[in-house]
Amino acid sequence: MASTAGSIIPCKAAVAWEAGKPLVIEQVEVAPPKAMEVRVKIKYTSLCHTDVYFWEAKGQAPLFPRIFGHEASGIVESVGEGVTDLEVGDHVLPVFTGECKECAHCKSQESNMCDLLRINTDRGVMIGDGNARFSKNGNPIYHFLGTSTFSEYTVVHVGCLTKIDKSAPLDKVCVLSCGISTGLGATLNVAKPKKGSTVAIFGLGAVGLAAAEGARIAGASRIIGVDLNPSRFEVAKKFGITEFVNPKDHDRPVQEVIAEMTNGGVDRSVECTGNVKAMMSAFECVHDGWGVAVLVGVPNKDDMFMTKPMNLLNERTLRGTFFGNYKPRTDLPSVVDMYMKKQLEVEKFITHRVPFSDINKAFDYMLKGESLRCLISMDE
Amino acid sequence: MASTAGSIIPCKAAVAWEAGKPLVIEQVEVAPPKAMEVRVKIKYTSLCHTDVYFWEAKGQAPLFPRIFGHEASGIVESVGEGVTDLEVGDHVLPVFTGECKECAHCKSQESNMCDLLRINTDRGVMIGDGNARFSKNGNPIYHFLGTSTFSEYTVVHVGCLTKIDKSAPLDKVCVLSCGISTGLGATLNVAKPKKGSTVAIFGLGAVGLAAAEGARIAGASRIIGVDLNPSRFEVAKKFGITEFVNPKDHDRPVQEVIAEMTNGGVDRSVECTGNVKAMMSAFECVHDGWGVAVLVGVPNKDDMFMTKPMNLLNERTLRGTFFGNYKPRTDLPSVVDMYMKKQLEVEKFITHRVPFSDINKAFDYMLKGESLRCLISMDE
Ligand SMILES: NC(=O)c1ccc[n+]([C@@H]2O[C@H](COP(=O)([O-])OP(=O)(O)OC[C@H]3O[C@@H](n4cnc5c(N)ncnc54)[C@H](O)[C@@H]3O)[C@@H](O)[C@H]2O)c1
Ligand SMILES: NC(=O)c1ccc[n+]([C@@H]2O[C@H](COP(=O)([O-])OP(=O)(O)OC[C@H]3O[C@@H](n4cnc5c(N)ncnc54)[C@H](O)[C@@H]3O)[C@@H](O)[C@H]2O)c1
Ligand SMILES: [Zn+2]
Ligand SMILES: [Zn+2]
Ligand SMILES: [Zn+2]
Ligand SMILES: [Zn+2]
Repeated sequence: MASTAGSIIPCKAAVAWEAGKPLVIEQVEVAPPKAMEVRVKIKYTSLCHTDVYFWEAKGQAPLFPRIFGHEASGIVESVGEGVTDLEVGDHVLPVFTGECKECAHCKSQESNMCDLLRINTDRGVMIGDGNARFSKNGNPIYHFLGTSTFSEYTVVHVGCLTKIDKSAPLDKVCVLSCGISTGLGATLNVAKPKKGSTVAIFGLGAVGLAAAEGARIAGASRIIGVDLNPSRFEVAKKFGITEFVNPKDHDRPVQEVIAEMTNGGVDRSVECTGNVKAMMSAFECVHDGWGVAVLVGVPNKDDMFMTKPMNLLNERTLRGTFFGNYKPRTDLPSVVDMYMKKQLEVEKFITHRVPFSDINKAFDYMLKGESLRCLISMDE
Repeated sequence: MASTAGSIIPCKAAVAWEAGKPLVIEQVEVAPPKAMEVRVKIKYTSLCHTDVYFWEAKGQAPLFPRIFGHEASGIVESVGEGVTDLEVGDHVLPVFTGECKECAHCKSQESNMCDLLRINTDRGVMIGDGNARFSKNGNPIYHFLGTSTFSEYTVVHVGCLTKIDKSAPLDKVCVLSCGISTGLGATLNVAKPKKGSTVAIFGLGAVGLAAAEGARIAGASRIIGVDLNPSRFEVAKKFGITEFVNPKDHDRPVQEVIAEMTNGGVDRSVECTGNVKAMMSAFECVHDGWGVAVLVGVPNKDDMFMTKPMNLLNERTLRGTFFGNYKPRTDLPSVVDMYMKKQLEVEKFITHRVPFSDINKAFDYMLKGESLRCLISMDE
C-alpha cells in the first residue's frame, strides 16, 4: 500500500463554486476510500459536453460547489474494504456509469444499465454512505457522476472503474472513458453495419465522429455525415466520412434527400445530436426491409419522438443505446485493445492539450466549438 | 400436363359484386396462366380480416366485381412459360406477398418485402400483362392480392406460391398462408424471446394467438395476453397465455400495469391489434436494457406513433414486421414442417368449417367475432 493509504490526501482540484463561473483550482482534502471504493490518482482528464451542461446548470437543480470531470485515466492509490478486483498501482479508467456484476442488467448479456451504478446526474455523494469524500475547510464538495476527475485524487466506486493494460498510454486512452466509446459502440455493438453497407451519421461532434470511426472499422462503403454546422465537415473528412448533407441546404426533409442518394435509404443510421428532429430523420432515412437506426443523443425532457407506424411495419428497426452498450468493466478493456492494435485511431479526436492549471481553456475551446477533445494533463 | 392445360377452365367462384354485399357463387372462366404464372386448383381456403376489410371497402377506392381470398392450399393444374420451380400436381400455398428471388429485398437475408411482388391491395390484375384472368360473359373480374382463392381455380404469379410437402394435409396447412405465420414469425423471427422469458401479446385474434403460440414454442415462462374484449380470454387459454390484462380494468396506462406485474417490464412484446395506442403501450411495456417490441398490426393511415426518446435511449428496441419476416418461397415450407413435426399446433386455430357454397357464413362468423379461422372446403 502507498504511504498515503488510509490518510486524507490534500491535493489540487478544480472546483466549480457557481453555475457557469470559471473553475477555481483549490487545495482540497480527499478522504480515504470506504467499502467498495477506490482512491485514484488522476493522470489525465478531458472535457465532455456533459460536464459543460451540468456546470451551466440551465435545465437542472444546481448542485454546488462541485468537482466535475468524468473522462479520465489514472492509477489506483489505495482501495477500500472489500475491493478485490483492483490493487494499488493498477491503471484504470473511471466511467460515469458502472457495473456491479450482480443485478439483472449486469447479468443480462444485452444491457449495460446497471441497477445500482447507472448514471445519476443528481447525486453528489458516494452511494455507500451518502457523503462526499471531498472537502475544503471541513465543508463538503459534491461529486459528479461518481467520478469527479478534475482533481489530482478522487474516490470512485469499484464498479465504475475499468482496469486496463499498463502498456496503454494514459494520455490517449483517457478519451475512451466516455464520448468516443459511446459513438464507437453505438455503431459496432448496436447498429452493426455489414461490410460494404451505407451508414448515415447525424451530428459530427466527438460522439458522431466516433460513430463514423466505427463505421469505417466495420468496412462501410459510404459514410454520410449530416450536420447543420458546415464547419464540422472539414474535420469530419479525417474520420472517413465520404459525403455530407446539411439539412439547411434542402427544402425537403433530409431523410428524403438521403433516400434519394442511396436508392431507398441507408442500411444503418446513428443519431448523435440530441435533437429530436434529427432522431426522427435518422429513423426515417433507413431502408425498409432491413434498415436499423440507433439513437445516442440525449433529448430534452419534453421532446416527443413521432413517426407513422407504417415506417416501422415496413421492417425498420429503431434502437437506443447508452454508452455504446459497453459494460464498463467487462467490455471497455477491449476498446483499449482496439486502440493498441491500431484498429481504432484515437489521436485524431484529441485536438487540444492544456496543463491542469489552464482547465478553463478547455471549456472555452468546447464552447467555441473548436475542439473535439481537449486533454488536461494533471502533472503539467 | 392435365387435359385442361392451355384451355380456359369454367368453374365456380364466389364473386363480390358490390362492397359489403354477400358473395355470389358464379360460373366464371379462368384463362390459362401466362409467362411466370401458375394455375392452381384450390382445395381449401379460409377467411382473413383483410378479405373482410377490402370487401367492406370502407377506407379505400372500391374495386368490383372482385374475387377475394388469400389464405388457401391447392394443387398446380398447369404452369405458364418460364415456370421451372413448380410442376403439375405440386401442392402449394398461395401467399399475398411474393418472392421474386432477384431484387435487393429477396437477396437480403433480413427482408421479405420483395420489390416486385410485395403486397399490393389496389391491383386487381396480373402483374405481367395488366389483365385479369377471371371473366364472366367476357367481362373481367378483378383479382385480390394476386391470389383470389375464393374460386375453384385461380391464376397466381409463381413468386407468390410456396411449394409444400405432399404429405402435409391441405385442410390444415391452408391457414398457414397468412395470419398464423404472421403472428408466429413475429415472435420467432423478430421478437426472438429466449427460453424462460416474459412476453406480452397485445390483441388476441388469430394473429395474436399465433404470436402467443410462437412464445410457447420459444419456451417463454410467462405469456401475458392484453385485449379490450374479455371474451377473447377464454379462447386464449388454449394458446398458452398464462395471464390476462384488460386495459379497461385499470385507470392508468396498461404499460404501467405490466411493468408492475413483471418487475420493470416484459422481455418481449408483440402488438397484433392495428390500434396505435396499443402499439405505444406495447413498446413502453418492455424492460429497459434489453426489451424488444414488435409491431404487427396494420394502423390507420393517419395514425402517429409517439414516445419519449428516453424510452428508446434506455436500450429498448422497436421493430415492425410484415408476414412475420418469412420469405414465402424460401421460409414458409419450414413452418409447414413445424406443423408436421407437431411443434406447432394448427388445429386449434380452425374453429369452423363450411362448404364453399356456404362461404358467406364464414363472413358472419368473423364479423360476429365467433371464429378464429373458418375453413372453406372447395370440394364439399
Ligand atoms: N447515450 C450516451 O451514452 C451518450 C454519451 C455521451 C454523449 N451523448 C450525447 O451524444 C450527443 C452528441 O454529443 P457530442 O459531444 O458529439 O455533441 P456535439 O454538440 O459536439 O455535436 C452535436 C452535433 O450535432 C449537430 N446537430 C444539432 N442538431 C442537429 C440536427 N437537427 N441535424 C443535424 N445535426 C445537428 C450540431 O451541429 C453538432 O455538430 C449529445 O446529445 C450527448 O448528450 C450520449
Ligand atoms: N403485418 C402483417 O403482415 C399482417 C398480416 C395479417 C394481419 N395483420 C394485422 O394484424 C392485426 C391482427 O389481426 P387479427 O386477424 O388477429 O385481428 P382481430 O381483429 O381478430 O384481433 C385484434 C384484437 O385486438 C384487440 N384490440 C383492439 N384494440 C386494442 C387495444 N387498444 N388494446 C388491446 N387489444 C386491442 C381486439 O379486441 C381484437 O381481439 C390486424 O391489424 C391485421 O391487419 C398484419
Ligand atoms: Zn461524457
Ligand atoms: Zn449492476
Ligand atoms: Zn423480390
Ligand atoms: Zn390475411
